[in-house]
Amino acid sequence: MNEGTTAREAYLAPNQANYAPLSPLSFLARTEAVFPDRLAAIDGMRRFTWRETAARCRRLASALGGLGVRPGETVALLAPNTAAALEAHFGVPMAGAVLNAINVRLDAPTITYILEHGEAKALLADREFGPLAAQALAALPAGRRPMLVDLDDPAHPAEPLPGALAYEALLARGDPAFPICLPKDEWGSISLNYTSGTTAKPKGVLYHHRGAYLNAIGNALVWGLSAGSVYLWTLPMFHCNGWCFPWTVTAFAGTHVCLRRVDAAAIYEAIAAHGVTHLCGAPVVMNMLLNAPAESMRDLGGRRVAMMTAGAAPPAAVIEGMERLGFDITHVYGLTETYGPAMVCDWHPEWNALPAPEQARLKARQGVPYHVQEGMIVADSATLAPVPCDGATMGEVFMRGNIVMRGYLKDPEATEKAFAGGWFHTGDLGVCHPDGYVELKDRAKDIIISGGENISTIEVEGVLYRHPAVLEAAVVARPDPQWGETPCAFVTLKEGQSATEGDIISFCRDNMAHFKAPKSVIFGPLPKTSTGKIQKFVLRARLKKASAGVVG
Amino acid sequence: MNEGTTAREAYLAPNQANYAPLSPLSFLARTEAVFPDRLAAIDGMRRFTWRETAARCRRLASALGGLGVRPGETVALLAPNTAAALEAHFGVPMAGAVLNAINVRLDAPTITYILEHGEAKALLADREFGPLAAQALAALPAGRRPMLVDLDDPAHPAEPLPGALAYEALLARGDPAFPICLPKDEWGSISLNYTSGTTAKPKGVLYHHRGAYLNAIGNALVWGLSAGSVYLWTLPMFHCNGWCFPWTVTAFAGTHVCLRRVDAAAIYEAIAAHGVTHLCGAPVVMNMLLNAPAESMRDLGGRRVAMMTAGAAPPAAVIEGMERLGFDITHVYGLTETYGPAMVCDWHPEWNALPAPEQARLKARQGVPYHVQEGMIVADSATLAPVPCDGATMGEVFMRGNIVMRGYLKDPEATEKAFAGGWFHTGDLGVCHPDGYVELKDRAKDIIISGGENISTIEVEGVLYRHPAVLEAAVVARPDPQWGETPCAFVTLKEGQSATEGDIISFCRDNMAHFKAPKSVIFGPLPKTSTGKIQKFVLRARLKKASAGVVG
Repeated sequence: MNEGTTAREAYLAPNQANYAPLSPLSFLARTEAVFPDRLAAIDGMRRFTWRETAARCRRLASALGGLGVRPGETVALLAPNTAAALEAHFGVPMAGAVLNAINVRLDAPTITYILEHGEAKALLADREFGPLAAQALAALPAGRRPMLVDLDDPAHPAEPLPGALAYEALLARGDPAFPICLPKDEWGSISLNYTSGTTAKPKGVLYHHRGAYLNAIGNALVWGLSAGSVYLWTLPMFHCNGWCFPWTVTAFAGTHVCLRRVDAAAIYEAIAAHGVTHLCGAPVVMNMLLNAPAESMRDLGGRRVAMMTAGAAPPAAVIEGMERLGFDITHVYGLTETYGPAMVCDWHPEWNALPAPEQARLKARQGVPYHVQEGMIVADSATLAPVPCDGATMGEVFMRGNIVMRGYLKDPEATEKAFAGGWFHTGDLGVCHPDGYVELKDRAKDIIISGGENISTIEVEGVLYRHPAVLEAAVVARPDPQWGETPCAFVTLKEGQSATEGDIISFCRDNMAHFKAPKSVIFGPLPKTSTGKIQKFVLRARLKKASAGVVG
Repeated sequence: MNEGTTAREAYLAPNQANYAPLSPLSFLARTEAVFPDRLAAIDGMRRFTWRETAARCRRLASALGGLGVRPGETVALLAPNTAAALEAHFGVPMAGAVLNAINVRLDAPTITYILEHGEAKALLADREFGPLAAQALAALPAGRRPMLVDLDDPAHPAEPLPGALAYEALLARGDPAFPICLPKDEWGSISLNYTSGTTAKPKGVLYHHRGAYLNAIGNALVWGLSAGSVYLWTLPMFHCNGWCFPWTVTAFAGTHVCLRRVDAAAIYEAIAAHGVTHLCGAPVVMNMLLNAPAESMRDLGGRRVAMMTAGAAPPAAVIEGMERLGFDITHVYGLTETYGPAMVCDWHPEWNALPAPEQARLKARQGVPYHVQEGMIVADSATLAPVPCDGATMGEVFMRGNIVMRGYLKDPEATEKAFAGGWFHTGDLGVCHPDGYVELKDRAKDIIISGGENISTIEVEGVLYRHPAVLEAAVVARPDPQWGETPCAFVTLKEGQSATEGDIISFCRDNMAHFKAPKSVIFGPLPKTSTGKIQKFVLRARLKKASAGVVG
């Protein structure tokens, strides 16, 4: 037959009947049509059906057009997990625009930088973050300030934002029948997410419609959502677009349970009140649930709740504790550059027969690529030669496939570097086990080299978390004249618990190779990034000061 | 930002790191890597793990290349649902070739036509169909005969096919490490499926890798497969590539239970022996299971088995009966041109509270598009103007989206006609209910017009199936001097049951508008196509003969 090359095959080219750009917008159209009366969103006292949510998204899209937002332009969002944030995930791309959900925990100068770099034409800001938005906007040159839209959530009846358009009034003027058009090109950008940028300026990661569609489905393939799933928004939507879950949950006509503030009492309360079946969150959320004060805790009554976690390797002891509470933990791994989760510790049913600690140890691994991510290797950072899958040889994790970002906005150099050799460089170091599962050992810059031996800070932290008095732990390198570096542990103890430096060190020596055990332990609260990650660079700076004679 | 149009955006074009062609081949690569020791296929006494199945597919791909099969060329398959048929669904496209699975129930001249039209370079033939293959090949000019490969299944130890290469020997020579390469272009053809062609020559429907990937996932989104699913091959793989399930089940590392011959005893036996969780089949398979002789039936022991059905609207009574036996019926709808199922009667949990017959009536509808199919309308065949969704106004069903075929091989005219107006013309007539669910009323050519009133033969058949003595029924138009046409029922009674023409007619009159009731009933076995569909054109021909004075 030898088709594809000859002129007589021209009639087999894509046409309107057999080709549609892949976009998660089609999920909203389908769910609105098929399940209009099912509950789409719960936000405080407000309830929206899918008919209502779709109409609000249509209104938003038409209103943005009316405000002069053109296809390809950026619309920024500064909001916690509210119904408006969910609506923006559809309404903004339905207007052909690119959604830039900004982390509400950032400082104003960083937000100014993001608004300027992303060239936002409009900023939808929740009232709770009105002062932050105002401060960020004020620092922009007058001609480059985006229009401000005041997300006037009745559950947060603060003062209106000065000089802003009111969101609900804007929607009221919008067209509830505005068409849900797919983008012309599935490679077109749907969103822009800035990396947290611990060392340099944040980089603007571009997601395209195709990747967002595929990872929305990819989540479902590894996690078994179904019609009737009730999803609790513990994970911020401004974090990799909530790992694509605004789109996944919508595809299944599930219910989005919004959550303005994430704390243990609110989570347990929402699970009980709304029959939550699924939630996501960093290990810090698991810690929160595990160590909640007794009065906030609720018995799940034998029900199992599915929780997906990522963002830092969850200590095995934390996984084990969560499973005992009634949470089925699925461990995923990814980066802003991979639409959030792109690998999963895919579970083998045989493993259910293993003792709980062994199960937790297996589950603490980052695992294997999603169905929708085509390639992954653990390899030499320079040569890209794969390391042996022996569970011991360290290499950098590389990925390739349809859920790798388009690139960094206005940054060809960083994009080229990230994709050098035809693979996305994650910057994360790990080993590949004989069963093909990857286990992260560290960020490239977090590894400790002590007396020529590599020490994985994640491994040391895993042991620290097993100590009954430890709430949180982070290990960093302390400069050492003899060994080059030695591990230093920063530890927060659980309320009402106590332990000495000696207790902690000897516990570590009892549970791992002696050379890996921390040589010093510092107690106190840990500095965190706006996304809840522990800021190791702050801890390192403290140690440097200390070794320079300044108190840490 | 206004990206996508300016030169500075060139660095954001797809590259090796962030773009991979969509292809179901990637599912085999993933499952082999992640679940190598899980059971992939059960075929008679043989068992294959995913490691083994993947190696056999790799060997097949390399061996086909060794035989001179070039990318883009056709490899035909004539086999029942065996492990080799499953392997061909991966091995052939892994060689870059296009799989043409041929219906084993076709006559030799039709197979000759298909081999010649599809320009098959090789034919993999199961020994059971050796004589049929030989006869079809003999009719081809010597220079245009494909190489013959003898699928020497030890479970069917017939004589070797003369002049053929032995499949197992071929695999033994193949390279078990042959790479699983994705196609260069996701729009490239993965398979070629001929329509059954009741009126004209069969047409060759081309599937591309993108569509096969998406519908493999589409099946999972509507049907909740998961790791550990055990899929029974009651649906022929030569029917729309088994509705894409060779690829779906593989994505989930499920187990394919092969079945050389489909009968009630074999199905019940396989369900009991292998813990089958999912199967597909036309309503004829449901009838088979419902009306099995007592000694073949097995109690499912409280277990529920998921069954997907399509191919003809299942009578509500049949659905109800199956649910009582322990089968959860999912009703889907599609055509060869839509990769098999492309619509589903998506279930609303509220409907579970309805009485069983009402549930069955709702479930007998063809429903709404798959998540991966972007558009569907019920519209005027000529103008494509949508009909009102009132459950009464008849129109033709049109679809568009990523699971519509590339087109018909070497037939630009038919392709253009099928896609006229930017929609795929299904040729099926139905109504759209107020809830947006489609219910087929007939093939365009099957509708009966009696005294100016349209009568849906499907509706009449639905009533006939509710009669306790009726095993199978088909209704066609009988030429009538007074009314133009009147409905005539052809009925097969259940074993040991009896009913007269008068019984059947009065039962129909009691259960539907009188003008729709058959005016005559003819008892006896029903002629079927090779895919198990009742051949109404044969029945019509009988009636014409009868009205011309010849005995029917």
